[in-house]
Amino acid sequence: MTEITAVGTPTPILDGKAKVAGSIQFTPDLKLQGMLYAKMVTSMYPHANIRGIDSTDALASPGVVAVLTADDMPDVPPESRITLLLAHGRVIFVGQPIALVLAESELAAVDGAEQVHVDYEPFPAAVTLEQALAPDAPEVWPGRYVDTSTGKSSNVASFNENNRGDVQRGFAESDVIVERTFETQIAHQGALETHGMVAQYDPMTGELTMWASTQAPFGNRTDIAAVLGIDETNIRVIGMPVGGAFGGKNGLYEPLVACAAYRVGRPVRFVLTRSEELLATVPAPALTMKVKIGAKRDGTLVALDVETMADEGCFTTGFAGTPGGLMVDLYRWQHSHRIARNVLTFKPSVGYYRGPTGPSAYFALETLIDELAIKLNIDPVDLREKNMVRTGDPRGQDGDRWPMIGSAEVLKAVREHPVWQGRTQARQQGRGVGVAFAQWGGGSESAAAMCSLHKDGTLQINVGSVDINGTMTSFALIAAEAFGIAPERVKVRFSDTANAPFSGAAAGSKVLYSTGAAVLEAAKEARQQVLQIAADLLEAAVEDIDIIDGKAQVRGAPEHAIPLAEIASQGMSWGSKFAPVIGNGRVGIEAAAPVFSAQLAEVSVDEDTGKVTVHRQVVIQDVGRAINPLAVQGQLMGGATQGLGWALYERMLYDEDGQLITGTLMDYTLPNILDAAQQIDVVLIEVASEHGPMGARGVGEAPVLAAPAAIANAIADTVGVRMTKLPMMAPDVFAAIQQ
Amino acid sequence: MTEITAVGTPTPILDGKAKVAGSIQFTPDLKLQGMLYAKMVTSMYPHANIRGIDSTDALASPGVVAVLTADDMPDVPPESRITLLLAHGRVIFVGQPIALVLAESELAAVDGAEQVHVDYEPFPAAVTLEQALAPDAPEVWPGRYVDTSTGKSSNVASFNENNRGDVQRGFAESDVIVERTFETQIAHQGALETHGMVAQYDPMTGELTMWASTQAPFGNRTDIAAVLGIDETNIRVIGMPVGGAFGGKNGLYEPLVACAAYRVGRPVRFVLTRSEELLATVPAPALTMKVKIGAKRDGTLVALDVETMADEGCFTTGFAGTPGGLMVDLYRWQHSHRIARNVLTFKPSVGYYRGPTGPSAYFALETLIDELAIKLNIDPVDLREKNMVRTGDPRGQDGDRWPMIGSAEVLKAVREHPVWQGRTQARQQGRGVGVAFAQWGGGSESAAAMCSLHKDGTLQINVGSVDINGTMTSFALIAAEAFGIAPERVKVRFSDTANAPFSGAAAGSKVLYSTGAAVLEAAKEARQQVLQIAADLLEAAVEDIDIIDGKAQVRGAPEHAIPLAEIASQGMSWGSKFAPVIGNGRVGIEAAAPVFSAQLAEVSVDEDTGKVTVHRQVVIQDVGRAINPLAVQGQLMGGATQGLGWALYERMLYDEDGQLITGTLMDYTLPNILDAAQQIDVVLIEVASEHGPMGARGVGEAPVLAAPAAIANAIADTVGVRMTKLPMMAPDVFAAIQQ
Repeated sequence: MTEITAVGTPTPILDGKAKVAGSIQFTPDLKLQGMLYAKMVTSMYPHANIRGIDSTDALASPGVVAVLTADDMPDVPPESRITLLLAHGRVIFVGQPIALVLAESELAAVDGAEQVHVDYEPFPAAVTLEQALAPDAPEVWPGRYVDTSTGKSSNVASFNENNRGDVQRGFAESDVIVERTFETQIAHQGALETHGMVAQYDPMTGELTMWASTQAPFGNRTDIAAVLGIDETNIRVIGMPVGGAFGGKNGLYEPLVACAAYRVGRPVRFVLTRSEELLATVPAPALTMKVKIGAKRDGTLVALDVETMADEGCFTTGFAGTPGGLMVDLYRWQHSHRIARNVLTFKPSVGYYRGPTGPSAYFALETLIDELAIKLNIDPVDLREKNMVRTGDPRGQDGDRWPMIGSAEVLKAVREHPVWQGRTQARQQGRGVGVAFAQWGGGSESAAAMCSLHKDGTLQINVGSVDINGTMTSFALIAAEAFGIAPERVKVRFSDTANAPFSGAAAGSKVLYSTGAAVLEAAKEARQQVLQIAADLLEAAVEDIDIIDGKAQVRGAPEHAIPLAEIASQGMSWGSKFAPVIGNGRVGIEAAAPVFSAQLAEVSVDEDTGKVTVHRQVVIQDVGRAINPLAVQGQLMGGATQGLGWALYERMLYDEDGQLITGTLMDYTLPNILDAAQQIDVVLIEVASEHGPMGARGVGEAPVLAAPAAIANAIADTVGVRMTKLPMMAPDVFAAIQQ
Repeated sequence: MTEITAVGTPTPILDGKAKVAGSIQFTPDLKLQGMLYAKMVTSMYPHANIRGIDSTDALASPGVVAVLTADDMPDVPPESRITLLLAHGRVIFVGQPIALVLAESELAAVDGAEQVHVDYEPFPAAVTLEQALAPDAPEVWPGRYVDTSTGKSSNVASFNENNRGDVQRGFAESDVIVERTFETQIAHQGALETHGMVAQYDPMTGELTMWASTQAPFGNRTDIAAVLGIDETNIRVIGMPVGGAFGGKNGLYEPLVACAAYRVGRPVRFVLTRSEELLATVPAPALTMKVKIGAKRDGTLVALDVETMADEGCFTTGFAGTPGGLMVDLYRWQHSHRIARNVLTFKPSVGYYRGPTGPSAYFALETLIDELAIKLNIDPVDLREKNMVRTGDPRGQDGDRWPMIGSAEVLKAVREHPVWQGRTQARQQGRGVGVAFAQWGGGSESAAAMCSLHKDGTLQINVGSVDINGTMTSFALIAAEAFGIAPERVKVRFSDTANAPFSGAAAGSKVLYSTGAAVLEAAKEARQQVLQIAADLLEAAVEDIDIIDGKAQVRGAPEHAIPLAEIASQGMSWGSKFAPVIGNGRVGIEAAAPVFSAQLAEVSVDEDTGKVTVHRQVVIQDVGRAINPLAVQGQLMGGATQGLGWALYERMLYDEDGQLITGTLMDYTLPNILDAAQQIDVVLIEVASEHGPMGARGVGEAPVLAAPAAIANAIADTVGVRMTKLPMMAPDVFAAIQQ
């Protein structure tokens, strides 16, 4: 076989230089001829009727071209934030777009927006879970969600209950039971680049073009088509370089901006400020989780009871059920019972954020497991190893068998890691060491890729996904290895919905897993085509041809060789019997590849202030196969830090009137370089997935999961307090110590 | 089978409305940020050394940013106009680019270009064929072209001789011989839109983007890559909407402009004025053709002797051999002898122009055939029918067998046409009727296309060719029919070299023939994928599924049906076992599909002035299968008019110093609406090609071929003079009548 060792070679991100040097154009850099700048007028009340909108002053303001309201929008039912467009008579959260001011410059749009006068009739609102569940609470969507057992409507958008075994019996049979209620915060994805998009409509061709900082160009296209009522193939969504997304850019204002461009017949640019980003996008939900677990004296886990509630804001996304699912999946529980309630409040609806609900779920579960280990006097890693699920076990959620998983390998590496081994020493230095374990199911989505060979012997990959984390480089490595060419001779193009073969969203840890599999297939097919052309030209059997050093040659006879450039030219020529070399990789993978990830944290706590310092974070994760170890390592380090932010710093706070308090990055404290762990160790475990390309698993989400729990357990290890609320801010830790 | 009757339905050009309304952006409409405007400084002499270039004044001129010369260009050998870039010490034609002035506006560039001072050392030049062939002629490329028999170099770039049978014996056995020498003009393609392009280079990514009004994006890419020395896959050529090309836009200044953008690090726009277009592009060559034919008394053609010379300008393109090849191919000559000389002169090199050399070749041959018919007193159509080649005959040029051709069907239609039937009446009205016959071999080139099904049930076709004549619409019809969907639900996208599957140039009458075949294959493959998904979902056999009314259904059981939208969604879903529906059409077709085309002309001649009025033109052509009859008709009418321009009006004239005299459209007289034929009839013959998609042949070039000859024969028919020079301008016709 061809000797190419591309996959597994640590390779710097191909477009890293251009990104670092600032030469890449992001969405806000775009300037189209005749482009208008859009600014939202947003609701000042969490709940109100709109009696009227007076645009007179705004329209008289210099540079303002139009003030759009719901009357200018298509009449689509507001089923989600995507279809909410502009407020239709009623507002349900502070920050909800009411009008869109379009002007010749950004400043003119800002000035104009300040002069749109909205006449509100304010109503009482339910901002917290407690308020929303009160018997006489104002309903976000009056009458829409009816409890069939009582016949009454409420803010509970959905209620789910799952039973396996007999949880009461389970607890009765348990020797030790631990139980706590956990609360986790509304967290914002906090991408460096805010949401931004530019839309342009051509009435003569009926085509709409959208440039967007997005994870999901094809998803955006579907959303826009539905709202505008035009064919998807008349819409071209160009996924621009993305300055961070983390789940928050799966579609939000694209249809609104498309409608605006359609309405005014000029290109419209809409880029959020940081405050708008915090005020009016889709953060992760706050959760309350009442969790109870029981075990035998020998450490066998017996019963799990979970009751979760998600604060979903003004639309339901259905996150409440996820934490219980994650908890029931991680260990071999004999009995389990889960209740989940999705509750609406008068706040922005919520969205995906890296491993949605996972950091919360494992914060709760792994805190209790840690407590249990202490109570049982069992080594925490032993306890987890004894109970963890293994390849072939039935899954807690659905009874399906686990595919090949690396749970045991990950825990083995935890046990062997110096931070774990050295925990006694650490304690002597006044530090605590905590461990947490986690699992993420991974995702998959149908995907396709094109692989073509060109006249100078270069290989090109075209895909329809966007690159939010270095997949360009990984695809080049996969294609290089599968085709048999040096990675430097591979060019990867991320194209738009009008030109690229379909790929799903860059979300759910599945771009490499799904689109990467399509790249692999495409490269293999292109290779096969090359072998066939070469066999024809060299008068040899296809099986006897190999690709070596940029040439197709008869195996063992390098003198019978044709350069790849020549083979490509043969398929790009006048009167040639050969077709162009183009591999069409198409995959549909039902199975996902679950990822097990553990973290260790070594912390110290200043007992005078409660301030937690994370000295070391260790992420140990089964990545299946590290296509580009450098990129995987980066993903894992980033995830650890994002998890640290969730653990110690970040939270969205609203006052009793639903006004966002943490409206700037001064208030919403993303961890900076001084807050991050002083050292982050990454250990890559490679237990090949049966389904991923070359064994790879999607690695993006898992490294965030175990961080809060590991840090919480390390806090407990050094100061002996159990934190049950995220973030674990210094005053709260101090208070807990005082207690 | 699915009942879709898309192919064969006259369908208005899909983007016609947008083009007519002016909403489509052509290359000159592009404005990039930081874009510079480029203006050439061109040679004032046909032959000179450049002693120096003084840019001081130009650089001091307001808005001028740079003045580039050969020193700023890569050092590539000037093998063609494409690699000539900027003059390197020596100029060889008036209009040759010497420097490129880059400025902040078009006007500033013009002003700057006027202030670049070139110090010439002029030399004698050879501007005409006669001068170029004189024994002491200055050589365009001294010493490059050596006659191996004499060992001397000259301006004869190539000499070819072909013999079949014994032409002397042929003439000896002939009962009638006719012989004349013909001269045809340098003609310009005269596209409504001049050459234009914009280039941008990003040093951080190493990528170059080129927007161009071009027939050959992939060809441009290869040219640019070779000159810049970067990978083809780092170059993106975006074929812009083309306002006419006719062979003249296969690549010329793209590498020069790419180098300029590379050099200055800013986008560069280069759009020719009409005068520059006439001065410094690549018109069709002037030809002299000495032709002698002999026949038996019964009309059997026996011998053909052709000696041709092409005035190729400063580089050889090798056109001299083509006319003889066309002549020897059309009839069953027993003996033939051909000589061809390509001669260099100090003028712009020449290029392709719709049916290159064909109008000249048939003007010569068909004039002589007409004369022969009169001498033999045989009906001109009978004479042609007796001697024409038929399916399965050996070809005159190479002895290969003719594939399925429509020669007989075309002549039959000529005979039956009212204009031919009514020629006696026409003569009574003082008009003459002429007929001419012609053949064009057609071309083919490897091509690919992508066909994808989308979530709303629309079908998309992606190709890498450009649409210069309505192929977008024809592709939609082919895909609709092959897939089984209404044409309105098909979207065709012409993309760029970085995103589309490979297609060759939109040249050689082969876009529909080659890329159309790829579209057909892609649509068939996509259909097959749909049938498979439907069979799986409906639990039926693939053979039992059909696509009807936007649904895949079990044949004869419309209640067992799945909408195409649903099938597309199944292949674009999370955790789906189905891959996206994407057909990958790849074709390599060795055989071309020859096209036979005849014309009738009914003319009158004002004997006082020599002015020729064309009352009717009839184009009768075998199109194989008219995919979109409306578009084919348009092509044939356009071709007839372009042929009329060639016959009566257009010519490029140079004075003895090589200065272009016809430097504006006032001098280079393209026919206007009053000059065109008062009536143009089109008769489509459909003799299916074995190789073309659904039997189609490439129709673009053939309708221009027979026009000059038919008009010349009609002139002879009414005023009895034989014109031997193109264009047949009024003074020449008047002079001939006087003789």
